[in-house]
Amino acid sequence: MTNIAIMGLGVVGGAVYDALEKNAGIYKRLCGGIKVKYILDKRDFSGSEFASRVVNDISVILKDKSVKVVAETMGGDRPAFDFSLACINAGKSVVTSNKLVVEKHGAELERAARKNGVSYLYEASVGGGIPIIRTLRDTLAVNSVTEINGILNGTTNYILEKMETEGSSYETALKEAQALGYAERDPSADIEGLDAARKICILASCAFSGKYRMEDCAEIRGITNVTAQSVAEAKAKGLKIKLVGTAKLTDNGALLCVRPCAVRQANLLHSVSGVFNCICVKGDLVGETAYYGHGAGGSATASAVVSDIVEAASVRPLPRPASAKKAVCKQKKAAETVTLGGEEYELI
Amino acid sequence: MTNIAIMGLGVVGGAVYDALEKNAGIYKRLCGGIKVKYILDKRDFSGSEFASRVVNDISVILKDKSVKVVAETMGGDRPAFDFSLACINAGKSVVTSNKLVVEKHGAELERAARKNGVSYLYEASVGGGIPIIRTLRDTLAVNSVTEINGILNGTTNYILEKMETEGSSYETALKEAQALGYAERDPSADIEGLDAARKICILASCAFSGKYRMEDCAEIRGITNVTAQSVAEAKAKGLKIKLVGTAKLTDNGALLCVRPCAVRQANLLHSVSGVFNCICVKGDLVGETAYYGHGAGGSATASAVVSDIVEAASVRPLPRPASAKKAVCKQKKAAETVTLGGEEYELI
Repeated sequence: MTNIAIMGLGVVGGAVYDALEKNAGIYKRLCGGIKVKYILDKRDFSGSEFASRVVNDISVILKDKSVKVVAETMGGDRPAFDFSLACINAGKSVVTSNKLVVEKHGAELERAARKNGVSYLYEASVGGGIPIIRTLRDTLAVNSVTEINGILNGTTNYILEKMETEGSSYETALKEAQALGYAERDPSADIEGLDAARKICILASCAFSGKYRMEDCAEIRGITNVTAQSVAEAKAKGLKIKLVGTAKLTDNGALLCVRPCAVRQANLLHSVSGVFNCICVKGDLVGETAYYGHGAGGSATASAVVSDIVEAASVRPLPRPASAKKAVCKQKKAAETVTLGGEEYELI
Repeated sequence: MTNIAIMGLGVVGGAVYDALEKNAGIYKRLCGGIKVKYILDKRDFSGSEFASRVVNDISVILKDKSVKVVAETMGGDRPAFDFSLACINAGKSVVTSNKLVVEKHGAELERAARKNGVSYLYEASVGGGIPIIRTLRDTLAVNSVTEINGILNGTTNYILEKMETEGSSYETALKEAQALGYAERDPSADIEGLDAARKICILASCAFSGKYRMEDCAEIRGITNVTAQSVAEAKAKGLKIKLVGTAKLTDNGALLCVRPCAVRQANLLHSVSGVFNCICVKGDLVGETAYYGHGAGGSATASAVVSDIVEAASVRPLPRPASAKKAVCKQKKAAETVTLGGEEYELI
């Protein structure tokens, strides 16, 4: 039985708690069982089933040597980063769904984990429940991965699909997505491509040598300038406009970018609809592969978080090699393009 | 540096050798390096670059304690099974691409591996290079997997696609596939659905409790009775006939079957063309996910074999829990069907 703590009982943290209850038998078989000893949350849970486990002070968790794994599902930069680092330095493995912290502080947290002989795992930080991080680090690691293309943000994919199927304007589609809870009240991280950029940086860091950050991207362009006219013209040509994140090895280093593309019908990404994500990975041995699933949502994300908890609870951390020096390319080569609604789109 | 042996230098064995040469730097970083000490093959390689390493007698490999991992890429039932068992009993991990041996003798080989503290790994036995076995056993293992649907055989998928796009008869399409090397001279294992059935049994064994065998399948029906007329009628309705392997948890146990289905456009399997494979997995937490890639071919399959070699060379085998008792359902429930060319097809 492994004692864990959950930091942040929001949508993902709550779903992690529920999954651990629901599938307790599975986890007993896989790693001897997992017990949530503490829940760190500022809110008042008195009277709830959680009440006896809720703590407001991280030091309670840090001091308890029986807690081996901490799930960070708080979101945001701070204090999530500080708490994660403190847990690692206290000899606890940390697993997280927090792409912002992984993109910004991942290198430092992984260094600290190596130093302390524990794990820092983040399967849930990209593609919700899609098992892409472990696939890149383990099974596909025997390849030289040359290119990754992905639909990494469900909110923008939902908005673009609404524009395509209903002919609505960007503003109308965004409002609908907000009303349905698919877009946040402040949707800027999604619609400006920042969320997808963080994820392509995390994927590139797993697939290539080096740690890639937002500032390494050659281009980050969201969907705010995609017009109904462009979408309609794409449709007439059998194309779909999708927000695509790309990481590609070039002779001049890794080229990272996020931008709306015109996607051909023959491309797998063409048929990825709604809030689904899909990540295409090319390797020198394996050729083209793709991974598809729910890119967000409590339960799917919890699947990834719990798989990391089980890994951290089961095995001593694998001695993953430290990242090599990275090379970044910021010069995009001329790609095949198509003009839609007076705007130029890369054709993929 | 880990010493290995390759048993069988055919298409897959040769591609494994090439991959180990080509990406030697990657494997040095991942696990300290891999050296092919022996190649077991009956043919004469004198004069070739392999000559000094080729042996005709398995006992040379069995006796050499410096060989830690053996890649079985011979194919066929015997002597591949006997050699694998002998290697495991001699304290060596065995990795394989041999779906026939895994389906038929997997339970015995895994028991022997547990007893000897080594690994028996078979990522390459299903879906070529698609990382599906490790995904089911590790990342998705935190789910209760409820259903798997897959296009698991590239040969039949290629033939059905030819019939659809060119309106050709089954016989003509088969001859074309044979001429191009996509179908074997004796194509019965592919076209009668046996190859797909072996693979769905292996997937079910990874996803559910218990070891599933061919005789557990409720139905194994290949593509030999699919007519040009059925294919044309499907096309007119916006459907495609595909050979689909299914493993589903029912209240009465696991239902396993392989049969041609009429696949709707909204189903991911609809757009899987040529010799590609695609495997859709539903889990209680993660929801619907899918995995896509080259289902065969030396290089793609080598990617999977080498990933198993690296795992076996890197870590002590994880104590995977022994399989629980299985329950099999042989009663297919009434499904939604459509009549095409006078034949009834399950509609998915």
